Amino acid sequence: MSASLSTAAVLIIGNEILSGRTQDTNLGWIAGRLVERGIRLAEARVVPDIEEEIVAAVRALSARYSYVFTTGGIGPTHDDITADSIGKAFDRPVGVDPEAARRLERHYGVGNATPARLRMARIPEGATLIDNPVSVAPGFRIGNVFVMAGVPRIMQAMFDGIAPSLTGGPPIQQRSVACHIPESALAEPLGAIQARHPEIDIGSYPWFRNGAAGVSLVARGTDPGALDAVIAQIARMIEELGGTPVME
Amino acid sequence: MSASLSTAAVLIIGNEILSGRTQDTNLGWIAGRLVERGIRLAEARVVPDIEEEIVAAVRALSARYSYVFTTGGIGPTHDDITADSIGKAFDRPVGVDPEAARRLERHYGVGNATPARLRMARIPEGATLIDNPVSVAPGFRIGNVFVMAGVPRIMQAMFDGIAPSLTGGPPIQQRSVACHIPESALAEPLGAIQARHPEIDIGSYPWFRNGAAGVSLVARGTDPGALDAVIAQIARMIEELGGTPVME
Repeated sequence: MSASLSTAAVLIIGNEILSGRTQDTNLGWIAGRLVERGIRLAEARVVPDIEEEIVAAVRALSARYSYVFTTGGIGPTHDDITADSIGKAFDRPVGVDPEAARRLERHYGVGNATPARLRMARIPEGATLIDNPVSVAPGFRIGNVFVMAGVPRIMQAMFDGIAPSLTGGPPIQQRSVACHIPESALAEPLGAIQARHPEIDIGSYPWFRNGAAGVSLVARGTDPGALDAVIAQIARMIEELGGTPVME
Repeated sequence: MSASLSTAAVLIIGNEILSGRTQDTNLGWIAGRLVERGIRLAEARVVPDIEEEIVAAVRALSARYSYVFTTGGIGPTHDDITADSIGKAFDRPVGVDPEAARRLERHYGVGNATPARLRMARIPEGATLIDNPVSVAPGFRIGNVFVMAGVPRIMQAMFDGIAPSLTGGPPIQQRSVACHIPESALAEPLGAIQARHPEIDIGSYPWFRNGAAGVSLVARGTDPGALDAVIAQIARMIEELGGTPVME
């Protein structure tokens, strides 16, 4: 694939994902949004609710990619340690942000901003708030790290709020064609097409559906003309091998 | 949570996950199996089909955890670079394994083991095969790294084949109770319960279902008696706060 200028990593913070209790869907959702904005998602990590693990991952990913998006661990309970961990990663003190506190007070009623609720207003020094139109308690941005909630509905609202501020390249598009030819029969001619089109990223993904085996051949890139040309070549290859290309 | 002796990491190899095209389900499935075997899944990463990324991740995870499970990239096409990358990570040459080649020949018919098919028999020197009862082409184990297919059905069959060889501790169990009390009202008494039971890992997970907001309080650990005690305390806490605990 042609290198896009902007890269990103997703950091999922949460024991509930690593215990198998919760099936993560945030990664796939963010990935889809980044593709649309021409930002290449280059890596994702899932770490437990352990401060040193979060700190190490944030530092590694923040140094390497244009943007880091974290999900999870910004609520009011004892296992919500993301804000403190991010503060440590950036060597910044963490305190109650006056504007975040005002939003929580407005929501819960003056005088009802208990210490637990004000925990959700704690952000590292120098961070800016990320709006939460669903449940008020904000996320925050510090440096190139965007700290968001883990609940999908809240995370999505937060992301859509910050998306206009992200710098991307031309949208990464993909085209896909499926067939029932075994991958091993496709491998050689498909590799030849890939070799002729280094600017397009061609993937081959076998599947089982309704008891039948098949494969999806996916072309990704930023040049629609090149994508169309590659998909046409793949479709012709499938026909030459005696198969029927099915556009997906 | 009480430290279990065995730890694990999952490494998901595949552009299709990072592009948002495919929703990964392998992580959650493996997580569930590891919990049953008393192995703590401590980290997961998703990397693209880029050799140096795979090499770096395998080395980092293999050095740190008891077991590493990789998924994806072991098919016959040009984007299947896992075997070569793992070989490089362990500084071992990669070649066609005679037994793997025999299995493929038996499956495809003698004389039909094309170069593309034999690509699926390539494993690093010193690796041992992981059986593939679904589609024959094997995975492999080298050191503490288990290399499996990305197609869930195949990965699951491979994992269940190797599972008896894994050394775990007592199964990690979890109990969960839900209520409609806001997390911020639960935070303080819940934190006190956690402080009294450091051997149990208590998590608080807010959710929206059918338009209603709620929270699941989850206790994880290896001591069933301690889990029952903690869940009983959490249920009592919910009642004292005026809520109705719902066992999940």
